[in-house]
Amino acid sequence: MDTYSPTDRTQVRRLPKRGVYDKAQIHAILDEGFICHAGFVVDGQPYVIPTGYARSGDQIYIHGSAASRMLRALADGIELCVTVTLVDGFVLARSAFHHSMNYRSVVVLGHARLVTDPEEKLAALRCFTNHILPGRWDEVRQPAEQELKSTTVLALPLDEVSAKVRTGGPIDDEDDYALPVWAGVVPIERQLGEPVPDVRLLPGVAAFDKRRFTRFRRK
Amino acid sequence: MDTYSPTDRTQVRRLPKRGVYDKAQIHAILDEGFICHAGFVVDGQPYVIPTGYARSGDQIYIHGSAASRMLRALADGIELCVTVTLVDGFVLARSAFHHSMNYRSVVVLGHARLVTDPEEKLAALRCFTNHILPGRWDEVRQPAEQELKSTTVLALPLDEVSAKVRTGGPIDDEDDYALPVWAGVVPIERQLGEPVPDVRLLPGVAAFDKRRFTRFRRK
Repeated sequence: MDTYSPTDRTQVRRLPKRGVYDKAQIHAILDEGFICHAGFVVDGQPYVIPTGYARSGDQIYIHGSAASRMLRALADGIELCVTVTLVDGFVLARSAFHHSMNYRSVVVLGHARLVTDPEEKLAALRCFTNHILPGRWDEVRQPAEQELKSTTVLALPLDEVSAKVRTGGPIDDEDDYALPVWAGVVPIERQLGEPVPDVRLLPGVAAFDKRRFTRFRRK
Repeated sequence: MDTYSPTDRTQVRRLPKRGVYDKAQIHAILDEGFICHAGFVVDGQPYVIPTGYARSGDQIYIHGSAASRMLRALADGIELCVTVTLVDGFVLARSAFHHSMNYRSVVVLGHARLVTDPEEKLAALRCFTNHILPGRWDEVRQPAEQELKSTTVLALPLDEVSAKVRTGGPIDDEDDYALPVWAGVVPIERQLGEPVPDVRLLPGVAAFDKRRFTRFRRK
């Protein structure tokens, strides 16, 4: 089994049996998610900002406006934490104390690298677009010179990384199983609504097939 | 209109028209979400950890095991950032550059306060349980002395706080509207699956009505 090596900082200590270091499982969580929360420090204050991302092999890319405070700070190589969380269900126990959620989350620690090579930058942008919707890059107008200039792309190696996963039903105290209260899991599902065409869509353009968002297909 | 005052740290600078400081709107986002990402710094390294939370008036509570590294660090009063993000849709534009997402996010900065008063602590735990599922607290066994002791509750005032909201369709470059490509919004919906009863559920306990999760009711 191909795994990441836990460090003192990524070893899951609370409830260690929920810790996951298996590469395939970590990649699968990163590929299913589409928003990460990026954490960085400015003047001692942590900031946590939601942003898009995409995985390419053993690194993840994040991007944004070259004018963004976050991207500028990170491009200077400061410490970064990127967390991706998928919440899968509410776990209703027989006691308030044992209520929980089922989830899969990945935490990546490291220093961001500013992507300057034009080919890598373009490949990263292709990665973002196709991470949202497979095949989208080839359908749309690709970035112009000025757009490339005004976009900052950062790479973060998947090196110091761990996942934490909870699955299954509630774990109650033995005495509480005698309580006549409903207990179990209520799954949370991410689904797509009906596509809303832009008001200026050209006549004759085929309707959008939302099944193209493969991550939302029912398993 | 009752608003929070933006500070130099919470003023939305990138795309300022997306900035929201209205209390009612910020509270509504916090009340619809159920997971926050808490950011804190240990030895210069930011950590971003997903965790439950609940709002009570002009503060939010987070909680966890008294043994948790995060909770111990935060109980010492270090700087904290709590971010709640709801992703509402994929925005497909005619150029790769203008792809976006519709979202509502709230960022709260501040110092956590350790909740030590037993009455406030119990009220906060009630708040957590009922934030997940309205009315749940009164159905289940409430915390025993030992459970209260092993739970740390932190309060964060809603003081330095802002929201960022994107809604609506893609904004394309004028020339790109001539491209024969589908553009628009594909909504992302959070829905509940069929409740899975615990294997040790007592016979005769009524089936769970998932409509009790009011935040998942269709608008």
